[in-house]
Amino acid sequence: MRDVSIIGIGQTKVDEHWDRSLRHLAGEAVLAAMADAGVETADALYVGNMLSGLLTGQEHLGALVADFVGLRGIEAIKVEAASGSGAAALRQGYAAVAGGLSDLVVVVGVEKMSDASSSETTAGLVMAADADYESVHGLTFVGINALLMRRYMHEYGVPHEAFAGFTVNAHRNAVNTPYAMFRQPVTADQFKRAKMVADPINLLDSSAIGDGAAAVVLAPTAVAREYGNGRGVRSLASSIATDAMAVHDRPDPLWLSAVEASAFKAYQQAGVGPRDIDLFELHDAFSIMSALSLEASGFAERGKGTWLAQAGEIALEGKIPVCTMGGLKARGHPVGATGVYQVVEVVEQLRGAAGENQLPNARLGMAQNIGGSGASVITHILEAYD
Amino acid sequence: MRDVSIIGIGQTKVDEHWDRSLRHLAGEAVLAAMADAGVETADALYVGNMLSGLLTGQEHLGALVADFVGLRGIEAIKVEAASGSGAAALRQGYAAVAGGLSDLVVVVGVEKMSDASSSETTAGLVMAADADYESVHGLTFVGINALLMRRYMHEYGVPHEAFAGFTVNAHRNAVNTPYAMFRQPVTADQFKRAKMVADPINLLDSSAIGDGAAAVVLAPTAVAREYGNGRGVRSLASSIATDAMAVHDRPDPLWLSAVEASAFKAYQQAGVGPRDIDLFELHDAFSIMSALSLEASGFAERGKGTWLAQAGEIALEGKIPVCTMGGLKARGHPVGATGVYQVVEVVEQLRGAAGENQLPNARLGMAQNIGGSGASVITHILEAYD
Repeated sequence: MRDVSIIGIGQTKVDEHWDRSLRHLAGEAVLAAMADAGVETADALYVGNMLSGLLTGQEHLGALVADFVGLRGIEAIKVEAASGSGAAALRQGYAAVAGGLSDLVVVVGVEKMSDASSSETTAGLVMAADADYESVHGLTFVGINALLMRRYMHEYGVPHEAFAGFTVNAHRNAVNTPYAMFRQPVTADQFKRAKMVADPINLLDSSAIGDGAAAVVLAPTAVAREYGNGRGVRSLASSIATDAMAVHDRPDPLWLSAVEASAFKAYQQAGVGPRDIDLFELHDAFSIMSALSLEASGFAERGKGTWLAQAGEIALEGKIPVCTMGGLKARGHPVGATGVYQVVEVVEQLRGAAGENQLPNARLGMAQNIGGSGASVITHILEAYD
Repeated sequence: MRDVSIIGIGQTKVDEHWDRSLRHLAGEAVLAAMADAGVETADALYVGNMLSGLLTGQEHLGALVADFVGLRGIEAIKVEAASGSGAAALRQGYAAVAGGLSDLVVVVGVEKMSDASSSETTAGLVMAADADYESVHGLTFVGINALLMRRYMHEYGVPHEAFAGFTVNAHRNAVNTPYAMFRQPVTADQFKRAKMVADPINLLDSSAIGDGAAAVVLAPTAVAREYGNGRGVRSLASSIATDAMAVHDRPDPLWLSAVEASAFKAYQQAGVGPRDIDLFELHDAFSIMSALSLEASGFAERGKGTWLAQAGEIALEGKIPVCTMGGLKARGHPVGATGVYQVVEVVEQLRGAAGENQLPNARLGMAQNIGGSGASVITHILEAYD
């Protein structure tokens, strides 16, 4: 297989984009990424999206976006893996370049959620769970996560306040991120007093849905120098793993086995371990997912994910910085776009283009995108090269 | 890239399966294909589906189906390209094996439509068209095809009766197909007297939506002999092309340029031409699409697609047999599953396992799956080998 580099990145601000349609968001991100790469064409386009059918009455996004961005005619499909759709689309683009099927690929994650009512959005998000055995009983997606968080607090004796560190870190990092949805800092006290959503998950445990799109351009590393600008960034690993769809079917609901499998497949492909990773863009859809992801990815012991946050180790100056540009919590979580935002942010850090939030000497970055409450997990490890 | 073979096939009857959920249909097809191949595991699963979100409140089918069929943990995603979703998923599975990312891949197309009301289904199908510029005006999916058919009849001076041959052929072939939805023959007179749906498209111009799933197992040809049974079938070509999303954006609405691009890319990959193809499973969602597909794929001159049907050349004993097991019209059209059914049928013919409808000496078969009214087109060419 061929070595693959990311030669261009682009993104929109995550926001309530009332004045723009899904195609405009995807188009802005794709054209920005192509301009960044210095290319005017591509062989194939992979679109990550979860909810356009239900929320905007539009499927068939591969052809739609290809047409809109001036790539009419090229190979184009949509890829869906719930909230993991963005990185799942990237995985397909990676496979096309690595496998020799395409030489120049665009991947875009896009979601347009503001146009729908909150009840439609709630119905949409729970499509990530098991319709026949979970949502049929009235369980919402935040409800599933609340059950996990309650169980975690009970099982490990961790108080709710222990999760504050994730939110404080994400908001602190978003202050300097121009495309983030919420650029104001949040204190542990504000976290404690936030309104309840689904006990014990409160508003500040929860990421913010929104509208947005992020895109990357991929090419074989052997020719990457002909394109793009800035430091080279190549993909050392790309992996997907799955788990039981319904949480009640998992032997241990507090262990995200697909996170473990996906992360360790990625470590193996890259020939590295958790200690080598300089930053970790994890899937903080809810604060409980941050703790569970750190544990199953090998960064924290079981039941001790919140310790890293409390000790400041997830901050920009910590041992394993997470959500360096704000994460899902504060950059925002346009569901099917999130996985590509995470990778764009890793590329920014590895290029040395992360502005005020730049990590010194970042060489290896990991991005992990989760579909549903852990049923699909996609991990990419990227490396900077000169 | 590696040569890829289809080592197993499976499918359910296309029907109104009131007693079974989407996962049961997909499961039956996947397990049948794996049993046919003689395998008990797989590296990756690609699910083609268009409408499960809107019609059944379930997305995230990659993890769902992997879990249900006993493949919990493996790489799994859903692929969507409207009514081309099935073949688009196959294209991803092909890429994974050809590119060396996976050694044993399952692809399943599945759609469950009976549970929804006809208005929900109508709203679902038109998501294949442009929501902002076509369906927003109240245009339905059959309405778009009706505009194309009216234009065709006007432009080329072809009467409606000329399309009867497609329907008569499809129904004749479905009589012997155990998994077909409509196994009764239809006469040209019945075609003429059928109820109008969207002038000039009548009920017998239209394929039947339904519930169903079809699956294939893929492996490198180099090891295909270790698995499976029957004659070997390998993929000589796999291609996707796209076109303008909205019909009004196409310079010539009667020329399906993505059909042409996809078919001729496939011919080039396979090193063959239309004359070498022994059977063509085309996308007869409406009879007008059969004519347009034959023309743009190089089997008929422009405006003369119906001549082939009238001359009997699309019959089992004709020059270019189409819809050999009943096609979308009579086997049925479970939207996101159709592309995989088409390939399963080509494999049946190439293996010599097509029963009463077996073509003598079929060596090269082509399957072409269309998303929307031609915005995404996926073509596969398969070859039998001993």
